[in-house]
Amino acid sequence: MATTTMSSNITAPTQFLEVGGSTYAYRRFGRGPGLPLLCLQHFTGTLDNWDPAVTDALAGGREVILFDNAGVGRSSGKVPGTVAAMTTHALAFLDGLGLARCDVLGFSLGGMVALQMAQDRPSILRRMILVGTAPRGGEDIMHLEKPSLARHFADPKLQGYAILTKIFFAPTESSQAAGEAFVGRLMQRTEDRDPPSGPEVAAAQVAAFRDWERFTGERFRELRNIRHPTLVVNGVHDEMIPVSNSVWLAENLPNAVLLVFPDSGHGSLFQWHDSFTRQAAAFLASDAPSAPF
Amino acid sequence: MATTTMSSNITAPTQFLEVGGSTYAYRRFGRGPGLPLLCLQHFTGTLDNWDPAVTDALAGGREVILFDNAGVGRSSGKVPGTVAAMTTHALAFLDGLGLARCDVLGFSLGGMVALQMAQDRPSILRRMILVGTAPRGGEDIMHLEKPSLARHFADPKLQGYAILTKIFFAPTESSQAAGEAFVGRLMQRTEDRDPPSGPEVAAAQVAAFRDWERFTGERFRELRNIRHPTLVVNGVHDEMIPVSNSVWLAENLPNAVLLVFPDSGHGSLFQWHDSFTRQAAAFLASDAPSAPF
Repeated sequence: MATTTMSSNITAPTQFLEVGGSTYAYRRFGRGPGLPLLCLQHFTGTLDNWDPAVTDALAGGREVILFDNAGVGRSSGKVPGTVAAMTTHALAFLDGLGLARCDVLGFSLGGMVALQMAQDRPSILRRMILVGTAPRGGEDIMHLEKPSLARHFADPKLQGYAILTKIFFAPTESSQAAGEAFVGRLMQRTEDRDPPSGPEVAAAQVAAFRDWERFTGERFRELRNIRHPTLVVNGVHDEMIPVSNSVWLAENLPNAVLLVFPDSGHGSLFQWHDSFTRQAAAFLASDAPSAPF
Repeated sequence: MATTTMSSNITAPTQFLEVGGSTYAYRRFGRGPGLPLLCLQHFTGTLDNWDPAVTDALAGGREVILFDNAGVGRSSGKVPGTVAAMTTHALAFLDGLGLARCDVLGFSLGGMVALQMAQDRPSILRRMILVGTAPRGGEDIMHLEKPSLARHFADPKLQGYAILTKIFFAPTESSQAAGEAFVGRLMQRTEDRDPPSGPEVAAAQVAAFRDWERFTGERFRELRNIRHPTLVVNGVHDEMIPVSNSVWLAENLPNAVLLVFPDSGHGSLFQWHDSFTRQAAAFLASDAPSAPF
């Protein structure tokens, strides 16, 4: 199994994989007894939006694979307008790497892709961690136009990563301080960075969210066929994808533990990185058929 | 600190404490570096309803104190019809033991008493574990008359502990098997047992539930003043006190982690005793000001 000695998202080199006419940018680092952990990223997020406090801690026990889906960062092509098409790219990427089985950490949009992977090719996943995400047919998924979010996008003082402290963290002193620390960690990587996502990326991903909110037939029915041990995680005051969506995941996935963090928003895994990575590592270390760990 | 060598609820002797004209039955066992853990019991539950798989695992790191509130088991007096009055007894018991500070595990009705203790005398508690319980103003709290529960109470085949497999566990093969194992563990204690609770105990405790559902002023407002690090736990398919109540606790307690177990009902802590006690012990081992662990 290929590993790199640079086991940090601050320093790991970006690699490129060509599969079926597409080029995918990724980083792969860490080592240990665990299966490789595929990390699927949030709305407009690139490889550089993965908090090293999260990736590096998890890389202590397994390879971590960060992945730019099509049209994001330095991956080729256009961002598709559906989660299903993003999932096809993620599976093609794993096939190109020759990985027949892995664990997955899907954050926000990435959690939707993980859920779709579990339906489209269940055998490729062992355990899933779904953070700040929603099932198909969920509610209030990334409505950036609602006042509680739109006011931050309209604020000219919030350039670059600064907006993340507002939209990923709760409006308390403690959560905002955690947000500033998070942004500081994202800026530790100084070379070989992805370009930030532009408006075309955002528009296509928002189209995918609107599609994901629609459902036909019995709501959440497809979740009951996903048997993978799953850890669902959310910040209790998530304005981007409310915690009710995580409760629905826990109620309808037959084998999911739900963990909700206090005083936090969409970026709960970054705010509570010590606890999150400890819990995630314990969950991934288990090979039991049941999710509780 | 007094400890006993019999660190199991299967064998620990029942003790009696007289305070202010009341006699309280209790058991106290275990040892370790942790603060004593006061365990507050569910509807009609006595000292013998504590699963040794839970109490004994926790007793490996601290003293565990099981307590019959007034009028329950071999404690004197009548069961009060309010959580507030039960709380007065619990505090009198701790005062009688000379315990100025402890941790608390409150299950169902016991969780309501724990919440009231945190309001009435915050200094006596360090960390709280609240399982299968509800805030004041919660919904659908122990409505034994609803068809999904009443059919079990009306079933003549469900004598003694057998009914617990139905009302504490989910209607799946796996959860029912866990329920039977739980009942088997409860029957391991053969001597020095409490008498089962009669209809007067049940009636007074149901009155306390009806009172607890009522609220005045802003719903859940009082929770925001409870700063104790708290671990809220629930089975996702709890028919006795639905998981929505635990979500409200997590949303309104400022310092609470929520942990929800799959494929389980009211007795999630007994079904998933390995995971529950591992998580509870990790939570109790932390002395951080924040709940995440």
